[in-house]
Order: sequence, then C-alpha cells, then structure tokens
Amino acid sequence: MKIKCLKSEILNGIQTVYKAVSVKSSMSIIECILVDAENDRIKLTANNMELGIETYINGEIIEKGEIALEARILQEIIRHLPESEVTFTTDDNNITTITCEKSKFNIVGRPGDDFPALPDVEKKNPLTISQFTLKEIVRQTIFSISESETNKMMSGELFEISNNKLRLVSLDGHRISIRKVDLKNDYDDIKVVVPGKTLSEVSKIISGDNDKDIDVFFTDKHILFEFDDTTVVSRLIEGEYFKVEQMLSNDYETKFNINKKNFIECIERSTLLVKEGDKKPIIIDVTDESIELKISSTIGSLDEFIDIEKEGRDIKIGFNPKFLIDALKAIDEETIDVYMVNSKAPCIIRDEEENYIYLILPVNFTTVD
Amino acid sequence: MKIKCLKSEILNGIQTVYKAVSVKSSMSIIECILVDAENDRIKLTANNMELGIETYINGEIIEKGEIALEARILQEIIRHLPESEVTFTTDDNNITTITCEKSKFNIVGRPGDDFPALPDVEKKNPLTISQFTLKEIVRQTIFSISESETNKMMSGELFEISNNKLRLVSLDGHRISIRKVDLKNDYDDIKVVVPGKTLSEVSKIISGDNDKDIDVFFTDKHILFEFDDTTVVSRLIEGEYFKVEQMLSNDYETKFNINKKNFIECIERSTLLVKEGDKKPIIIDVTDESIELKISSTIGSLDEFIDIEKEGRDIKIGFNPKFLIDALKAIDEETIDVYMVNSKAPCIIRDEEENYIYLILPVNFTTVD
Repeated sequence: MKIKCLKSEILNGIQTVYKAVSVKSSMSIIECILVDAENDRIKLTANNMELGIETYINGEIIEKGEIALEARILQEIIRHLPESEVTFTTDDNNITTITCEKSKFNIVGRPGDDFPALPDVEKKNPLTISQFTLKEIVRQTIFSISESETNKMMSGELFEISNNKLRLVSLDGHRISIRKVDLKNDYDDIKVVVPGKTLSEVSKIISGDNDKDIDVFFTDKHILFEFDDTTVVSRLIEGEYFKVEQMLSNDYETKFNINKKNFIECIERSTLLVKEGDKKPIIIDVTDESIELKISSTIGSLDEFIDIEKEGRDIKIGFNPKFLIDALKAIDEETIDVYMVNSKAPCIIRDEEENYIYLILPVNFTTVD
Repeated sequence: MKIKCLKSEILNGIQTVYKAVSVKSSMSIIECILVDAENDRIKLTANNMELGIETYINGEIIEKGEIALEARILQEIIRHLPESEVTFTTDDNNITTITCEKSKFNIVGRPGDDFPALPDVEKKNPLTISQFTLKEIVRQTIFSISESETNKMMSGELFEISNNKLRLVSLDGHRISIRKVDLKNDYDDIKVVVPGKTLSEVSKIISGDNDKDIDVFFTDKHILFEFDDTTVVSRLIEGEYFKVEQMLSNDYETKFNINKKNFIECIERSTLLVKEGDKKPIIIDVTDESIELKISSTIGSLDEFIDIEKEGRDIKIGFNPKFLIDALKAIDEETIDVYMVNSKAPCIIRDEEENYIYLILPVNFTTVD
C-alpha cells in the first residue's frame, strides 16, 4: 500500500474513528485503526466490537492495499508531524514507513485481513433529522442513564418513533428524563434501546450544525448513523424497555413557576456546605410566594428565598441536589413549571406540550425544626 | 466586625492571597484567610509560615474588627454568590453571617488574634523592576530547580544583584539555567537564595504588565515583594549557593546554529517512540550541514535531519530529551547557538551577550550501529 494525504485530513479522520478504538483488550487488533486503500477512496475504521466507526478521507492512492496500525501511536505520530503532506508505505512484512518533510518513522503494522469487519447493516428507510437536534436531545437525556452496568437496560436509552415523533427516554431508578421532537416526514413506528455510550460518542462526533442532517438506520440488532463521510454502527441492547408511562402522572397538588437560573444557583450554593460523599438532601419549603431552601451542616448553614408563582398546597420536600441540577441544566427555557403531589411522591418538571419531562424521586428527610 | 464590598472585589482578593493558604496543616488557623477591618481599609491575609500574602480590597467598614475564615469554604461561598454587594457580619462567638441578595450564609470563624502575623520586614532600598521582566526571568529558569526537597538549596534560585545586573540561577544536578537582565538604577550587590515556590507563586500573581513595577526588599532572612495593593513575604533559604562559575566554560570544539522550533518539534517526535518511564536518550549526530536525530525502540524507529550552520568537529552525543525541550522552550529567539566539547562534557546553549545560558549534561549511550 502506498498513499499520500495532508496531515490535517488523516488527523481529522483518526480523531473521528478514535472513539471506537478499544482501550485495553485481549484482542490487540481492535486497539488498531484500519487504513484501507483497497478501493477508490482512503477509509479509516475502528471497531471495538460494540461500536464501529468508519470515515473517508481525501488523499491519493498510489498503490492499493490496507494495513492495521496501533491507534495510539499512529495518532501521536500524526499529531506531531509538520502541517504538510504525509506518505504511508507498507512492505510485505507490514512495516509501515510514514514520511513527512525530513521525518521518517517506521512502525510495525498488522495485516488488514486480521481486522474485524463492521457488521453488515441493510440501509433502508432511514430516519433523517438535523445533527443539531440529535445532539441536543442526547445531551438533554444522557445524564440520567445508569452508570453501573448491573442493569444493562438502564445503561441505554429508549429511542422510539411513534406518530411521527421521536422520543428519547433514560432512567436510572431515581429519575426519568424524556425528550420528544416532531419529525418532518412519515415514518414507521420503531422502538429500540441504544447503548448510552453509542449516543454519547455519536453526539461528540457530529458537528451539531442545524443545516446538516444525519441518517439513522435500524435492524433487529443494530443501529447505524450516517453523516458527512462517516458511518457509526452499534449493537442495540436487547430486551424490552421499562414501562415509563405507568410512572408518569399528570395529577398534582402543588404547581409552581420559578426562574431556572436562580433555582440552579441557589441549589449550587446549598451544596457548598455539604462534604463530598455526604448524601444530605436539600429541603425545599414551598409556600405561597416563595420557596425557601435551607441547609445546615457542621460547616455552617444557608437560608435563601426565591420568588415563585404557585397554585395549590404548601409542601416541604427533600431532594438529592445533583438530580435537580442535572434536570434544570438540560432545560433551555428561562422559567420552568414544577409539579408536586406530596413529600413522598415524585416531582415532575415539564412544559405544557410535554416536549420535555423530568421526573425526580424525593429523598426522605427527618424534620429537625 | 461589619463590612460591605462587591463580590468581585473580595473574590479577587481571596484569589490573590490564596496561594499562601496552607493546604493541610496541624495548625488549622493557617488554613484560614484573615479578614482584617481594624484600620481604614479592608485587608486579606494568608500565611502558611513559609510564604505570606496580604492584599487590600475596596469596601466599606461599618464596624471595625477582624475574623479568620476557613479559606476553602470562604472562596467557594463567594464564588457562588450573585454579582452583587456582599455583607460580612460577625458576632461575639465568631459566627460570621455572609449575606448577598436573598442568600444568607452562617459559618463559624476564628478570632483574628489567633492568626499568625506576617514577619516584620524593614522596607528600605528596594529593587524596582517591571512585573513583566520578573515574570519572564522566573519562567525562563524555574523549570530547572530540583523538585525533591532532599537538597534544600537546589529547590531555590539564586537571586543576585551585581554591577547593576540582576541574575537568576537554578540548577538540579543535571542542568543549569541562568538569566541576566540590566537594571535601570544603581543598586548595592545582593546575593540571596529564594524558594522556588515563592518565585513561582509571585510570578502567578503579578500581572506581567511591562508598565507596572514591582518593588523587592531584602533582609537577612526574608524577601518581600510589593506591587499594586499586594505584599508577598517569604523566608529565604539559608546557606551559600553553588559556585556556578566553576561549572561554566567558554571553550568548545563544536558550535552550531539551529532553528529552535524545528529542533523542539523533532525532539518531541522522537520521544513518541519511547514508553513513559523508559529513560532512553536521544542521540544527536552533528555533521557539517545537518544534525541527524535517530531513535529506535520496540514501538518503531524515527530518523530525521535538521539543517544547521556548523563550526568545528563532528560529534555524536546523547541527551535526556526533556532537558533539551525545557531549555529550548525558555528561549524566545528564533535560532540558537549550541556549544559542545565532547560526548561526555556538558553542552551549552547561550547567546553572544550571555543574557541566557543553559547548560545540560549529556547522557551516556551505547553505540549500537
């Protein structure tokens, strides 16, 4: 194989596929990136067997061929080369020579045949949405997947098309996050569970441009994202997702409207007095025109009021401050509506149209005063 | 005590003195910042017994007094307050109430009397230089102090005034860094050893503005820096510094001029092939019109040429690449002169006027080829 390309081209390509490189594996081949110049264009591929990414880069193929190169060292070498043209040449023993101006690196590659091919996904009936929209709804839900892998289903997100709306749902046993967007075209209903890691990697790679689209294809076992010169394929999580509808309710006893920024900043201040690892809830005392947040610890105490507009009963309720902050930060609106039933029932933050719904379970607290 | 000031004023003040707050100490009072409103202006002080910093902030003193507050929590609270006016009120039990808009924090302070005063340094005959100059010469020498505290003297820098020139010297047993600047006024000769930590903290606090000066005062045991509204006092390291002149020589067998940026980038590339912790030297082969850098390891090999202008003998010599990079990065010039004697003698990088001198010991290498 012999190819030539600009340093910036190959570096961008490496950075795009890098997210699918295995960090530590018993199969060292999946710690490599496959440089494939077998056809008319140069293609880079990484595949950790859960997630695979391939991307095309511009360059000249002088002699066809392919080689798998250890991803970390390849990236480091390319990053440190001058901004100039880079030539890759491989010999029969897979020794790869990388030259750029007066630098000449030799590294040992591995035969391209050893590299595991991406799963073959039939591309039909894609869902087409803007990169911006996908990036946003992932950001606005991804924080409430479960980090532990003990419940596999909780480590993914429900990705559902129904009535020409796309809905993403994540939950971790303490909270539920739901985002819904209208789709422009007609689609068949679809319901799959996508690994959280896949969604977070895809949302990092896509530009977030509102004018650029992304196509999403589904099979029984895989989801495939196609955008620009790049394809991402991931396994799905098999099984049935939680019945979220049963956990949501539109009944409430208390509803209040509050400035989101003030609410976040006040919660952040109250957590200053809590030592890390100490799971102290913050207590919110909702009365007619304001809520009062109170916290006291060995470090000191804080007492703060925020103006609200309220309907319904007064209520005193405790929360894990992190869960409130995560949900509030995922909302773009300036003011939000909070719905509560009693101090033991979940609180719900949602807009009128239910384009977003954040449910948070309260924390038990012992009243000291 | 009762004082009022803007959030931004007290936050800047806290950040200025914070470098002298003790992180972990058996004396918990030195983990505090003293807020002193005993006189006409509000003063903040931190003092870890090696280094002390005090600074004045703008604000209104409503009731005179002083209080020591735990630095970390004070900084966190102030940082999270709205951009508004902050009021501090203390009661007889040192309970300090911090209010800002609708927030009210209570934290427990400690009596100001318990806080250790800064040493009394007689301020006469200051050295006056620009903040920019001090910041630069510290940056250009500080990297070669010794990090280990086994040799106390090596953890400091020689700070010497002689013939109206200021000279800073640091060394760690493998290399020496020297910077010299002309002073504008007449000064008595001075020779002290300043802890590296003091110089690095001072250089972080000063603005680096060429139009702003800093005054430096000396006593037998202390050095004091005065600038803007801030004073930094530090102990000196006692004892006599190394006789650096004996280690420097202007004799050489090989001299070459090289582009600094090319040289740095080439050395950085060569270190990519060395696993961390593996102390492999880079070998430089100096011939008539170029130097050749070669490195080979289990990962691969690199071979690269850089053009030079050379006088004298060919030489092959090995270095710890980090030491070369540190010195080269401290030099602002586009091209540099390198002087060598033989493969066992130190190499020296210096300008004609010796405003900078960087000496680096070579590393023994076994010739494989």
